[in-house]
Amino acid sequence: MRRASVLAAALGLTLACAGAACAADPTGAETLKANPNAPVNFTWTLVSAFLVFFMQAGFALLGAGLIRSKNTVNYLTKSYMDFSIAALSYWAFGFALMFGGSKLSSGLEHGTPWVGLSGFFLSGSAYDVTTALFWIFQMVFAATAATIVAGAMAERTKIQAYLAYSFLVSALVYPIYGHWVWGGGWLATLPFGVGARDFAGSGVVHAVGGLLALVGAAMVGPRIGKFNPDGTANTLPGHNMTYVVSGTFILFFGWFGFNAGSTLAATDLRISVIAVNTFLAGATGGVVALYASMARTGKADIGMACNGALAGLVGITAPCAYVPTWAVVVIGGVATWIMMWSLGFVERVLKVDDPVGAVSVHAAGGLWGLLAVGIFADGTYGDVRGLIVGEVGQLVAQLISMGTVTVWTLGTGYVLFALIRATIGLRASREEELQGLDIPEHGVPAYALDPSPAAAGA
Amino acid sequence: MRRASVLAAALGLTLACAGAACAADPTGAETLKANPNAPVNFTWTLVSAFLVFFMQAGFALLGAGLIRSKNTVNYLTKSYMDFSIAALSYWAFGFALMFGGSKLSSGLEHGTPWVGLSGFFLSGSAYDVTTALFWIFQMVFAATAATIVAGAMAERTKIQAYLAYSFLVSALVYPIYGHWVWGGGWLATLPFGVGARDFAGSGVVHAVGGLLALVGAAMVGPRIGKFNPDGTANTLPGHNMTYVVSGTFILFFGWFGFNAGSTLAATDLRISVIAVNTFLAGATGGVVALYASMARTGKADIGMACNGALAGLVGITAPCAYVPTWAVVVIGGVATWIMMWSLGFVERVLKVDDPVGAVSVHAAGGLWGLLAVGIFADGTYGDVRGLIVGEVGQLVAQLISMGTVTVWTLGTGYVLFALIRATIGLRASREEELQGLDIPEHGVPAYALDPSPAAAGA
Amino acid sequence: MRRASVLAAALGLTLACAGAACAADPTGAETLKANPNAPVNFTWTLVSAFLVFFMQAGFALLGAGLIRSKNTVNYLTKSYMDFSIAALSYWAFGFALMFGGSKLSSGLEHGTPWVGLSGFFLSGSAYDVTTALFWIFQMVFAATAATIVAGAMAERTKIQAYLAYSFLVSALVYPIYGHWVWGGGWLATLPFGVGARDFAGSGVVHAVGGLLALVGAAMVGPRIGKFNPDGTANTLPGHNMTYVVSGTFILFFGWFGFNAGSTLAATDLRISVIAVNTFLAGATGGVVALYASMARTGKADIGMACNGALAGLVGITAPCAYVPTWAVVVIGGVATWIMMWSLGFVERVLKVDDPVGAVSVHAAGGLWGLLAVGIFADGTYGDVRGLIVGEVGQLVAQLISMGTVTVWTLGTGYVLFALIRATIGLRASREEELQGLDIPEHGVPAYALDPSPAAAGA
Repeated sequence: MRRASVLAAALGLTLACAGAACAADPTGAETLKANPNAPVNFTWTLVSAFLVFFMQAGFALLGAGLIRSKNTVNYLTKSYMDFSIAALSYWAFGFALMFGGSKLSSGLEHGTPWVGLSGFFLSGSAYDVTTALFWIFQMVFAATAATIVAGAMAERTKIQAYLAYSFLVSALVYPIYGHWVWGGGWLATLPFGVGARDFAGSGVVHAVGGLLALVGAAMVGPRIGKFNPDGTANTLPGHNMTYVVSGTFILFFGWFGFNAGSTLAATDLRISVIAVNTFLAGATGGVVALYASMARTGKADIGMACNGALAGLVGITAPCAYVPTWAVVVIGGVATWIMMWSLGFVERVLKVDDPVGAVSVHAAGGLWGLLAVGIFADGTYGDVRGLIVGEVGQLVAQLISMGTVTVWTLGTGYVLFALIRATIGLRASREEELQGLDIPEHGVPAYALDPSPAAAGA
Repeated sequence: MRRASVLAAALGLTLACAGAACAADPTGAETLKANPNAPVNFTWTLVSAFLVFFMQAGFALLGAGLIRSKNTVNYLTKSYMDFSIAALSYWAFGFALMFGGSKLSSGLEHGTPWVGLSGFFLSGSAYDVTTALFWIFQMVFAATAATIVAGAMAERTKIQAYLAYSFLVSALVYPIYGHWVWGGGWLATLPFGVGARDFAGSGVVHAVGGLLALVGAAMVGPRIGKFNPDGTANTLPGHNMTYVVSGTFILFFGWFGFNAGSTLAATDLRISVIAVNTFLAGATGGVVALYASMARTGKADIGMACNGALAGLVGITAPCAYVPTWAVVVIGGVATWIMMWSLGFVERVLKVDDPVGAVSVHAAGGLWGLLAVGIFADGTYGDVRGLIVGEVGQLVAQLISMGTVTVWTLGTGYVLFALIRATIGLRASREEELQGLDIPEHGVPAYALDPSPAAAGA
Repeated sequence: MRRASVLAAALGLTLACAGAACAADPTGAETLKANPNAPVNFTWTLVSAFLVFFMQAGFALLGAGLIRSKNTVNYLTKSYMDFSIAALSYWAFGFALMFGGSKLSSGLEHGTPWVGLSGFFLSGSAYDVTTALFWIFQMVFAATAATIVAGAMAERTKIQAYLAYSFLVSALVYPIYGHWVWGGGWLATLPFGVGARDFAGSGVVHAVGGLLALVGAAMVGPRIGKFNPDGTANTLPGHNMTYVVSGTFILFFGWFGFNAGSTLAATDLRISVIAVNTFLAGATGGVVALYASMARTGKADIGMACNGALAGLVGITAPCAYVPTWAVVVIGGVATWIMMWSLGFVERVLKVDDPVGAVSVHAAGGLWGLLAVGIFADGTYGDVRGLIVGEVGQLVAQLISMGTVTVWTLGTGYVLFALIRATIGLRASREEELQGLDIPEHGVPAYALDPSPAAAGA
């Protein structure tokens, strides 16, 4: 439902000026006059944005727990810095390339179906309360896409390479596909169904992040010791399951903002259905993955349950607004099965080393989410109708979007990482990797226990 | 104040159709038209629900910190999976049994004073934005009750037994007492005072969870090494106080949503008083417990202060909307004293091993909270009047509710755990317990430090 | 913008009665009638207050990670108890001293330009929904100021001394400067510019907390081993970088409530601009600090990046509502440079041992924030105009406020800590410090690893 007209309605003031240049309103006085519902919509959207911001902490803890302690400072540094760098690059460039021409609010007047061309640095007529609201919500989504890659490339990627990646992905790769889907670009206006739909970003955020993770992990190569000479894989266990579970809880918490906040308006009361769907998809994913692990190995694998929950959440992100609860349980369960299948495929067929399963959770889960819109949308919301109500057109639009995001992201991701490899270099030295990256790149270990006999652990 | 009429008013649309079948409104368009305040009430209730959801992370960290590291993965698995399983069972059965017949929103038309009979699977006329809103708020409460038990039974309960418990408690035990108090059942309509009142669930959530914890901990038996042959108890210390304090902070944070969100409406401006009362009760509990520990042992026991804060919060949960701030300080302080007394009673008299103090915090604190309504309600809100304004009737209603929750929960809890004991079995083997449950049941340790000399801790 | 008139407008009902005694409204029914926007403003302010409350967990984790494991329980106890004690002392005394006479809501009628004189215990006519709303928002700010000191005095301060400090600072030191700026006191009404302005508390909260930290750290003296006989300093490394990064994420998350919530009203749509400014200042601070550390030492210092982000956030706290985004990037970057300079100044010139950098982040950053208002305010909001739009008056008001907060806080801080030193004593014994404070003062270590071979770490 992120079509320009709908968004414009939700954002209120812009309704009056959609299609024409808006007058910037940096204090909000005019906006309030034009739309008495603006305060509740601002409250809803801002609180949701804050929750999505907090997901950064979830990614940091989840990834840190799943890797070895000798690379923890390195991972944390990447996970923390990527959103900071992304903020500056999205402020300067990304937001304008993504939403310029969408006419969604003041300062976003110029663009083409291929790329946006206004709103740089939030300056000029983009110094406006509605544009600022829209920026922060979109900003935290861009940061989510960026940070997905950190886990897949963990334990062997140079810190400077990763910082450069963070800048480029948020300035260019993410915004341009985003423009096509959410910025009024060509995918949003395909003549099938109502055009490609991705309510909260299974494709725009998760598939982009997950596919970049695949390219990055492939190009940096596997960690020393991951694969044996005969091609079989070893498990390199993580170091702290409490962090893994805590991180998953934080991600789940933030996901309510991610999905339900994507209405950008509390006047759209569908937010409650979206929140319920988000909850049930994540719950189903966790249950399916846990019982699958018990059936397969006899052990209740909480790490797999966490990834199952996340796969369920990724899968419901695109269809969350369009489907009834019974379909949610199906979507979440299937997302988890696909994620588990993908884990084996990535490791055994592609021979790519993804320490945290980011590719399987975000790319596989995200593509499934795009597809699920075309299957399960029941037509109650946004006029989106899938196979279950007898329509085929929407599925066609979704398939085109799936193909597009795959080709675009793998292609630009390859160029991006090749560029970094040719200049900064992607991979830490063998000595650094064996020692762990924390000391050589950061100068401190993650953990230092006091030798006092009283403190036997940390 | 969770009476049907009040809730119906808060929820807006339902006002029009209370008593009759409502037309389901899956998009919210009709609901918005009927009640222009719906957006702010939806925002308030959803954000509160998200905060209550996040309390799951608090319970996970608190409990993990208070137990030994060799059982941490096991505890985390239970703490994570219980809310996931509860979500599915409450979606399928629990919600309908609890609120069917309450006529609070579309799809909740059928029920008796003893049990609800409509709203299963949120299907049919329960596919409605108001019903969805109500479901997610109630769902996170059900999950809170369920997860309280994990700590009391930690370190010796089989994972499969606990998963079965999670399903049954949310499908049956929790919803039925809940129906009597919040679903328009017989306790809510007692002819004393205004009927039994439990604003945010000292009884419905905490006493139920805490009493189940008591039955479960008694039936699974104490951990090996907890009691000496002469019946005296040993302290089996936890493994991470940072987790304990972090978990308590998260619980406290979420409790604002738990209590203040229970108005289900921001148009009820009493929410600010409730938030203040919640803050002061938790603060008082922590201060009382810390100084009591210093007076008794000379040591400032932060673990006791955390449990004191939680006891204060549990105690204020039922009366939070009805009492002035001076009473809050009394209620929070007394809750903490009762909790501390109960710790000794459970361990030394009942000989029950409760590793985290869940029984004392949630059952003792919860029953006190129910009682406190009958004593301290000052009549400013919801017409609830306690002893301090010279009324006795409310106290009678509260005592009946206290007796009921005790008998109901101990009784059904016994049947529930006996059933599981007879089928799956409750207790892990002696070998598994001595080794710790993490490796035998889950295949991984919680912590694995890299042998790199740079990483001396975790 | 926290002037009485503006606040009164935001809070709605109080507008009608500003200047006269208001009738207390403990249920909110009258307030709602008088101001139909009250629900959205209550929602916004309460959710913001909850986020600020959660910052306590951030301070706890950040500080715990930056110190040695043998003093972790001690630090956590202080960090947890200070807000609890502060709650009781601010309820009893602080709030009344700070806002009495402001006439911002019912019960705050009496005071002088120097100190407030009504609202004690939230009793009498302060039993009112608007006053309660205002109290909880102000309470979490007071708690923030209090907890800043815990880190600077960590690892050698007696627990009882710190608990006494917590009471006194929230009862007296913090509220009185607060009254001058936010309670309608003399600084708010200076005849320069629009009077001293501190939108969300760079001065009132952070400079007060940071300057108290300076006095406290100086008076308790450096940790054993911090300084060599020749006066050079040693680094005493922290024990857990995952806690440091997690704590920073939580602080950043809560800061959105801190700054944007300080409008106390969602009807002031400037909240979106404030949120954007908060985000960009924190992001800039982190990036500047990380690259500066890489330039200086060749290592990517994530601890420095975290403190950089916090310095950027502290710096933007006063000007967040008044400045455009380009200025934010300047303010955040400069804040970080000042913080890094201050770290060396405090350690090498003042010879003060501040284990977490609290003085440099909060005092130096906070004073810079006050100054930045006078430089960068662009006049779009609240009529505040700085040098960049050609006005000098505002800068004068800001300089007076900077001088005042410095003199007031250093002076009263000295008296406060001297009093505690003379009675309870400030410093733990040499034996306790060498052993670590956890066992002697609290009886438990922070961490206890199970000896099971399966659990090799914690």
